[in-house]
Amino acid sequence: MLYTFAGSRSIPTKSTMPAPHIRPATAEDLAFIVNLIEADGMVGSTEDTANPQGPGYMAALAAIEADPNQLLLIAELDGQPVGTFQLTFTPGISRKGAWRCTIEGVHVSPEHRNKKIGETMMVWAVETARARNCVMVQLTSNKARTNAHRFYNRLGFKQSHEGFKLMLG
Amino acid sequence: MLYTFAGSRSIPTKSTMPAPHIRPATAEDLAFIVNLIEADGMVGSTEDTANPQGPGYMAALAAIEADPNQLLLIAELDGQPVGTFQLTFTPGISRKGAWRCTIEGVHVSPEHRNKKIGETMMVWAVETARARNCVMVQLTSNKARTNAHRFYNRLGFKQSHEGFKLMLG
Repeated sequence: MLYTFAGSRSIPTKSTMPAPHIRPATAEDLAFIVNLIEADGMVGSTEDTANPQGPGYMAALAAIEADPNQLLLIAELDGQPVGTFQLTFTPGISRKGAWRCTIEGVHVSPEHRNKKIGETMMVWAVETARARNCVMVQLTSNKARTNAHRFYNRLGFKQSHEGFKLMLG
Repeated sequence: MLYTFAGSRSIPTKSTMPAPHIRPATAEDLAFIVNLIEADGMVGSTEDTANPQGPGYMAALAAIEADPNQLLLIAELDGQPVGTFQLTFTPGISRKGAWRCTIEGVHVSPEHRNKKIGETMMVWAVETARARNCVMVQLTSNKARTNAHRFYNRLGFKQSHEGFKLMLG
């Protein structure tokens, strides 16, 4: 399946449906992002949807924007945000001092699913990781999200690891 | 099991065996780290053990040292390195703009296992993540490393996610 990452032109479905545009998120996107995270949540309410430009969210966006190794992204279709994801580029010693790209916060609007928007987002992520000389792209997905697991497997990801989380505070 | 993270004094085993000291890694530690990664590998040889201060490794160390959100650490016992791990602190929008801490590259020298060195390293990681106001500590572990999974579960981590990797190039 790796051939799908050779270039966006090689994705046959992209020629038959409108392709979303990927761009950095801004403060104006926070309401979209925060509401989507809340709607997609698996552990009850975690977000302050009434105040998506509150100080916590604005500080996080500022920290992301200030760090060249963080990218918070929006997939836009017809000028409207329809998806979001975040990339973190991490230097490490292993594999002769290789960089890796970690994908977090992958969400697509419920009303825009099954339009290959997630696929376009992930292809963009992989192409960007390649362009930045990463040897690996990695992500974790909640064990209950079996549809997502099929999606990532289809894109060529290997489900090789167990993902552990420890909540603090 | 979360009580074990309340403070290092609460770990009963630490009073009965020498506790390793945690400190940032330096270029002098690269030979130790690179050899340990190579010995712990699950996918064949990945490292240049003959040249652990080669340009790739030195550039990675420099990138880590230049980034306040990266910490490459050494556990030292009696003045000798016995373990290593890396912490990455990542800002994000979810959970009201929360930071998370990702642990990568956890390795303990084979001859120093079963001395609670890994536990001391992970307790240090969690305490540091707390001090930096992270809401979560996360890591992935190869599905074949079942001993490691028991270790992380014992420390209170929840094995809630599937870990996906896509190798590039």
